[in-house]
Amino acid sequence: MIRVGILGSTGYAGAELVRILLGHPDAKITIVTSRQYAGVSFSEVYPSMRGIMDIPCEEYHIDRIIKNTDVVFTALPHKLPMAFVPELIENNIKVIDLSADFRFRNVAVYEKHYQQHIAGRLSESAVYGLSEINSEMIQKASLIGNPGCYPTSLLLPLIPLVENKMVMTDSIIADAKSGVSGAGRSISLDTHFCEVNESFKAYKVSNHRHTPEMEENLSIAAKEPVQITFVPHLVPITRGMLTTIYANIVRNVSEADIRDCLESYYQNRYFVRICKEGAFPNVSNVRTTNFCDIGLKVDSRNNRIILVSAIDNLMKGAAGQAVQNMNLMMGLDERKGLESVPLPV
Amino acid sequence: MIRVGILGSTGYAGAELVRILLGHPDAKITIVTSRQYAGVSFSEVYPSMRGIMDIPCEEYHIDRIIKNTDVVFTALPHKLPMAFVPELIENNIKVIDLSADFRFRNVAVYEKHYQQHIAGRLSESAVYGLSEINSEMIQKASLIGNPGCYPTSLLLPLIPLVENKMVMTDSIIADAKSGVSGAGRSISLDTHFCEVNESFKAYKVSNHRHTPEMEENLSIAAKEPVQITFVPHLVPITRGMLTTIYANIVRNVSEADIRDCLESYYQNRYFVRICKEGAFPNVSNVRTTNFCDIGLKVDSRNNRIILVSAIDNLMKGAAGQAVQNMNLMMGLDERKGLESVPLPV
Amino acid sequence: MIRVGILGSTGYAGAELVRILLGHPDAKITIVTSRQYAGVSFSEVYPSMRGIMDIPCEEYHIDRIIKNTDVVFTALPHKLPMAFVPELIENNIKVIDLSADFRFRNVAVYEKHYQQHIAGRLSESAVYGLSEINSEMIQKASLIGNPGCYPTSLLLPLIPLVENKMVMTDSIIADAKSGVSGAGRSISLDTHFCEVNESFKAYKVSNHRHTPEMEENLSIAAKEPVQITFVPHLVPITRGMLTTIYANIVRNVSEADIRDCLESYYQNRYFVRICKEGAFPNVSNVRTTNFCDIGLKVDSRNNRIILVSAIDNLMKGAAGQAVQNMNLMMGLDERKGLESVPLPV
Amino acid sequence: MIRVGILGSTGYAGAELVRILLGHPDAKITIVTSRQYAGVSFSEVYPSMRGIMDIPCEEYHIDRIIKNTDVVFTALPHKLPMAFVPELIENNIKVIDLSADFRFRNVAVYEKHYQQHIAGRLSESAVYGLSEINSEMIQKASLIGNPGCYPTSLLLPLIPLVENKMVMTDSIIADAKSGVSGAGRSISLDTHFCEVNESFKAYKVSNHRHTPEMEENLSIAAKEPVQITFVPHLVPITRGMLTTIYANIVRNVSEADIRDCLESYYQNRYFVRICKEGAFPNVSNVRTTNFCDIGLKVDSRNNRIILVSAIDNLMKGAAGQAVQNMNLMMGLDERKGLESVPLPV
Repeated sequence: MIRVGILGSTGYAGAELVRILLGHPDAKITIVTSRQYAGVSFSEVYPSMRGIMDIPCEEYHIDRIIKNTDVVFTALPHKLPMAFVPELIENNIKVIDLSADFRFRNVAVYEKHYQQHIAGRLSESAVYGLSEINSEMIQKASLIGNPGCYPTSLLLPLIPLVENKMVMTDSIIADAKSGVSGAGRSISLDTHFCEVNESFKAYKVSNHRHTPEMEENLSIAAKEPVQITFVPHLVPITRGMLTTIYANIVRNVSEADIRDCLESYYQNRYFVRICKEGAFPNVSNVRTTNFCDIGLKVDSRNNRIILVSAIDNLMKGAAGQAVQNMNLMMGLDERKGLESVPLPV
Repeated sequence: MIRVGILGSTGYAGAELVRILLGHPDAKITIVTSRQYAGVSFSEVYPSMRGIMDIPCEEYHIDRIIKNTDVVFTALPHKLPMAFVPELIENNIKVIDLSADFRFRNVAVYEKHYQQHIAGRLSESAVYGLSEINSEMIQKASLIGNPGCYPTSLLLPLIPLVENKMVMTDSIIADAKSGVSGAGRSISLDTHFCEVNESFKAYKVSNHRHTPEMEENLSIAAKEPVQITFVPHLVPITRGMLTTIYANIVRNVSEADIRDCLESYYQNRYFVRICKEGAFPNVSNVRTTNFCDIGLKVDSRNNRIILVSAIDNLMKGAAGQAVQNMNLMMGLDERKGLESVPLPV
Repeated sequence: MIRVGILGSTGYAGAELVRILLGHPDAKITIVTSRQYAGVSFSEVYPSMRGIMDIPCEEYHIDRIIKNTDVVFTALPHKLPMAFVPELIENNIKVIDLSADFRFRNVAVYEKHYQQHIAGRLSESAVYGLSEINSEMIQKASLIGNPGCYPTSLLLPLIPLVENKMVMTDSIIADAKSGVSGAGRSISLDTHFCEVNESFKAYKVSNHRHTPEMEENLSIAAKEPVQITFVPHLVPITRGMLTTIYANIVRNVSEADIRDCLESYYQNRYFVRICKEGAFPNVSNVRTTNFCDIGLKVDSRNNRIILVSAIDNLMKGAAGQAVQNMNLMMGLDERKGLESVPLPV
Repeated sequence: MIRVGILGSTGYAGAELVRILLGHPDAKITIVTSRQYAGVSFSEVYPSMRGIMDIPCEEYHIDRIIKNTDVVFTALPHKLPMAFVPELIENNIKVIDLSADFRFRNVAVYEKHYQQHIAGRLSESAVYGLSEINSEMIQKASLIGNPGCYPTSLLLPLIPLVENKMVMTDSIIADAKSGVSGAGRSISLDTHFCEVNESFKAYKVSNHRHTPEMEENLSIAAKEPVQITFVPHLVPITRGMLTTIYANIVRNVSEADIRDCLESYYQNRYFVRICKEGAFPNVSNVRTTNFCDIGLKVDSRNNRIILVSAIDNLMKGAAGQAVQNMNLMMGLDERKGLESVPLPV
């Protein structure tokens, strides 16, 4: 039984980790921390959990973590994990960090878009936890920088095409749409029900901090620098992310070539599903699951590929992929604890 | 392994049965029928199921049912099951019917509110599948009339109080609110997104066919005829039902007495949770689960008890309770296949 | 042209006043105040208003108010208006206060449920602004305590029946459902999109501060003390309130009698519409309007009347009724500025 | 007083025309037709209209139309208007058709994407009713092909840039998102509340019939053939459309140049609002109004312009623009009847 600690357990990603891991056959949650709710039963913070998860949230104490956990998930705001993670790693605890702190191999890029990094060397040796792409490295890793939700939704459909030189890498445009839970549980006017309900907007237009994360990983796949245009939008739904990607096709590449490329790339990967011709994803088809559904069509009049991907931002976009990474790190089947059947509605 | 058939598998209740049973450790779906989609893969009807449930829907053939199933769930519109069920029972197949056809012991009441009954004698011997209330009878039953969603949400909080003579049975008023999936997957202007979104209304005011079902079971508990006032409302959410019940209290009964009554009545029943003092249910706390949460407060100025119950109308209000009944009938732990952890959001 | 000031203009009720009064043919907004946004253009707070309402919000200065306004609306949190209103009244400015501060004739009741009152004598002489009920007093008033949304939705259907002794006043139960804008624009976890969306709950069960406001006005109508049971619920919609009321009928009163009573009571009142037999209100039918729609049915088996009323909580439940009261106070047709046609969806 | 007839008055666009025209100071609705509801009061179809619009819907009779109308709006499905419109025009009735039947100057394009045209010559002489772009022609027209919602949202931001050669016309990509009312009031599984709520999807990917309509009008502006990539998406809101447009910039054109171009192009046009630098539209800011809000940003790393436009699909995208066109045709201020103040929420 893998003993698991969750730091920052009462945010939405942390609580989703709790939910998944309570149903995981080979893991046991031993510690949940929360600064805000220290001393309070988890089920008082989430009343749905009454009778299921009544243990108290506690403050972070390194000694208790060392004694009681094999794996720690950090579901904390950016900047906090880099303070905690080094001592966890030193004590041979495997860490999966859901913040941006360990997602960049190029620490200078992190520092440009976030803040100074106080554990830069550790960051350079961390593994970017895009499960299907980096699974071999993840299996050997002790520290995972778990991908952002937008990067996951973009990289899974694009990396196979970029690796195989099927699209013009200077033509990539991504128009992404996210549910509100991606903004977390903190309160603000931007997440007030009356401001979000019956609304739809673009935000951080061509200015979102997930862009450099996407570009670093596309560049690795392309073996050359890649720059993209990325515009996120906010959808008045709780869970779900749909990303529509446009790129010019390399000469003589057909829709069938692209379909073959994606299907063969992911043929043994349970959580990536390529839609049949003419079918496209809907976030409702992946809600509460760890699937990434991908649809595609070539606009032959303009010689462009259109890719559409759908994930649940709290699952494949955060906690689900984090658990998938834990499975890989611990030598388990990657599906363990992640096979809940999709809801019909 | 219990071999299960689901008749009417592509409606919302049928598809929810498919979802639950695919995750059930001791059951295996062998046949799913659908008149509308016969010959079509289940995952073409519900694309979320791609790779998970790809077997085709088929037409009803009694021979295939007899050969391949131990238990059949009928998730069909009222009136159809009474034509199919008798031959299933004759062939020693256990049946759990989700329509109203076998909910009434008094067939005359059914005939008054629905239509003529062509299997009336069978109906009289069926068991009303309110799992926590009738569990002993359910364990021995071969045919279950699975309760309606509104009756489940009302009877679980009220029956203990009525049995124990704590409320005036001529004073009961129930104001219920249901999500839209309760209306099923059939299309109509009443379920058009633009007509439901940002709307809220009462419907079938004091005229809903679930009223006699509630009254028959309250009367059994009270050992005298009980009549209630019942008004349902439609909430613009997909899943969930909240029922607020008002009744005058019998002299000298206190809030503590009522709390004690409910807590002791349900102390060993996993799926009924009594909220702590001052806390009340929210449908979001039970969404996708089989729980029924119950909150209560005495309005001491007016000597009335206020009970609030919350269920997921597709789970405890339909498919979840149906599987709970299957577990009881087959000698399994009633929780089997029904322990998915609640979603944080 | 009536010169109007709005104190607290950037909350939802204040902004709705701005919206209505910008379209009012006989009124002109001269001053809008906001502590939080002083110095900021109104259209920066509400970008929808760009090019329509670009004047800056300002701090409250009594001199500027005296010089520039004939009527002031106070859309401030409870407790603030009682500090400002006396000096406005002394300076012959008519005041319509949307808080609870001047709703109670019995100041002791206010003090029990809110806080100490520092302008109690003024409160005793204020007029409760339920437009259809108190129109004669309102026409002569200089200070209006504008009704709460829940009281408006309950009192309009009930007062005619209570005045005419048609219902048992000790049997009244009101089950009310409100959209989220009723909670205002302040941020809190309770109004976070992800906490409200797909949720439904009761709150302040039998404990809401609008209850004594309802009871004072029912008691005046009944000419005897009336106590009720009142339970509010939160609906995941932005605007709208539906209240379902239950009461036992006085002997020999029929549904036709009750219908006649309501229809004749409101026959000349444009904003109250009695639904035809068999029809019931939907909040979507009154959204963005000042209407109160009322439906009714007698549950003859139990000798109870069921009344259902629908209003837009920001309109008839707040800003719309406030403008209606201004019209009455200023000798205008009560409809002025309030005749926008309902939206089809 | 302009006497107005509305053919197809009970669909959402037709009912929105009714709503607007009831509030129009210079127009009077004399006839509303509906095949489905002939003989039924309009307020029985839309109960919100009780007391406001109680006249009956009627069948189409050319004699009654000739005798009683000066202007006719046809809010019918594609294919029907081309049968009715010729005889209306022959009788000197001005016609504004909301279907696609008269939107194309090139009838062959219509016939390729819709069906055979039986009034092709009339179509060639009709005016495309994009009010701000074609206002001079509209003022003289007797027949208007009122633009589709997607084309309106795309053409208003793009035409000034295309006319002024600021963007590479072979690089245009439009990613559009529409509320559900755009699909009309007809019932289908695609508009069932439970299928739309909490969902988000792309549809008709690179295959939508509005594409040739956009391309014809872009080509006219560019004075050369223009082809675009267009992908629509469905948002779970009732009203609103947001379109995000990407194009490569012509060498040496700056963000300031593009801003200047749009601001000067629309400086005297009330209904087009260019957002300030750093601000972007939200559909909630234009809901129930006739505004088109446009935001822009240059992604200078990739030398691309990003334009974001927001409209209410039933207003500027259908009925609102139709009334604006009527105003222009009849020599009225284009704002007449269209100045309702935006809702705060």
